Amino acid sequence: MLKELERIAYLVRDAVRALPKDFDRGAEMYMGADGTPTSSIDKVAEDVIFKAVEDRGLEANLLSEEAGLVDRGFEDTLVIDPIDGTHNSILNVPMYSVSLAVGKRSLLGVEHAVLLDLVTGALYKASKGQGATIDGERMSVRSLRSARPATLLYLGRFVHPRTFEIVGRSSRVRAIGCASLEMCLVAQGRFDAYYFNTKVYEKGIRVVDIAASALMLREAGGEIVDLEGKVLDLPFDLAARSNFLAYGDAKTKELML
Amino acid sequence: MLKELERIAYLVRDAVRALPKDFDRGAEMYMGADGTPTSSIDKVAEDVIFKAVEDRGLEANLLSEEAGLVDRGFEDTLVIDPIDGTHNSILNVPMYSVSLAVGKRSLLGVEHAVLLDLVTGALYKASKGQGATIDGERMSVRSLRSARPATLLYLGRFVHPRTFEIVGRSSRVRAIGCASLEMCLVAQGRFDAYYFNTKVYEKGIRVVDIAASALMLREAGGEIVDLEGKVLDLPFDLAARSNFLAYGDAKTKELML
Repeated sequence: MLKELERIAYLVRDAVRALPKDFDRGAEMYMGADGTPTSSIDKVAEDVIFKAVEDRGLEANLLSEEAGLVDRGFEDTLVIDPIDGTHNSILNVPMYSVSLAVGKRSLLGVEHAVLLDLVTGALYKASKGQGATIDGERMSVRSLRSARPATLLYLGRFVHPRTFEIVGRSSRVRAIGCASLEMCLVAQGRFDAYYFNTKVYEKGIRVVDIAASALMLREAGGEIVDLEGKVLDLPFDLAARSNFLAYGDAKTKELML
Repeated sequence: MLKELERIAYLVRDAVRALPKDFDRGAEMYMGADGTPTSSIDKVAEDVIFKAVEDRGLEANLLSEEAGLVDRGFEDTLVIDPIDGTHNSILNVPMYSVSLAVGKRSLLGVEHAVLLDLVTGALYKASKGQGATIDGERMSVRSLRSARPATLLYLGRFVHPRTFEIVGRSSRVRAIGCASLEMCLVAQGRFDAYYFNTKVYEKGIRVVDIAASALMLREAGGEIVDLEGKVLDLPFDLAARSNFLAYGDAKTKELML
């Protein structure tokens, strides 16, 4: 299954690379199933994935940010974010990815995941119980070295004010706008935590955004919890949203929640 | 002069690319002239630049983040940040650059500038009065489209609390940790503003950080001011620091200061 997902991810990369330089990546096509507008670059990537799933006869239903759930009569579901970091792609911020995960029912049921960084080409893979890799090398989280974690976080108009406290208590802070790759930076042991707290439920994270990267992080030794500290699970359903803390070392959780 | 700077920038890129995969980019070598530790990757890049300046007989003094001012008896000074975004390079965040600017006395005296994105390879060039380019194409700032700017900003332990107000008033927010490339995102018209406000003078920006990118932004139609709204100038001196707002459209200044 990983090999199949990997092939599909490279098809997306090729399609994005082939876009003309003046292609308007941000053109809004129509309203996506998640209630946000589908940009032209999302549409390009989603079309490639849907076609590949058909062509290759992949035995899975589909859940996508743009199209919603497509029940193809299988037990497994392929959960995709065709482009995670759509706005980075439009804004020329070099962090966006294609995110593919296969499993059953919910985030905790994800069994295989592939993420491809569409700028640097880094390839992330994970299977449940078998670890996670970046470009073939095992990933693992790091231990917390001080009371001041290096923190990634969500920033934007709907940020929860508690986020600003976290900024003051961190050593370094970045807000990059690509949840999947930010999760992978924690999985690689480059950052201690990724803190995501919005004050509006509709701006919380969805399962499509983190289905692949949550498995990467867990397989690298980290965890992802809601802001009450409970292990995060999200059903395969675009309507479910949550805030969360992702971390490498469990001590980070005590420090930040 | 631009051609010379460009050649030097590519020498730095080649040296960074040639580093072994397990090279410890963050190893602290010694205390730099600016009072922060010089990392091994800074040292690699600075050595390349110093050698190239000697080999090519470039007629300029040198001002570097790491070595300070090297008076070679010329009128012009080459102001360099061997790696802007050192920590991004160490943390695997794909935004860091080599920044080279030539001019006299101060930021406003910079005449030529070259910036090379060491991840994507994008090449930025500017000469005073002659515009700025990215990969040969003219850059220009954008007009402000709404009362909610798309904003880049400095975040970290020493952030000024006023920054959090700016977050709430923006449409989108990123904090990427590479001043030179963040300035260039404003110059390209991808973001409206870059807001940099620390509560500790010693964490303010230095002339080496923005010597090249300030010329890019000004030549693309934008401006950079201190937080009192005065056009920002900084002497060629590592001791001088400032907070600032960089913007494309002058209306942004009224909105944010």
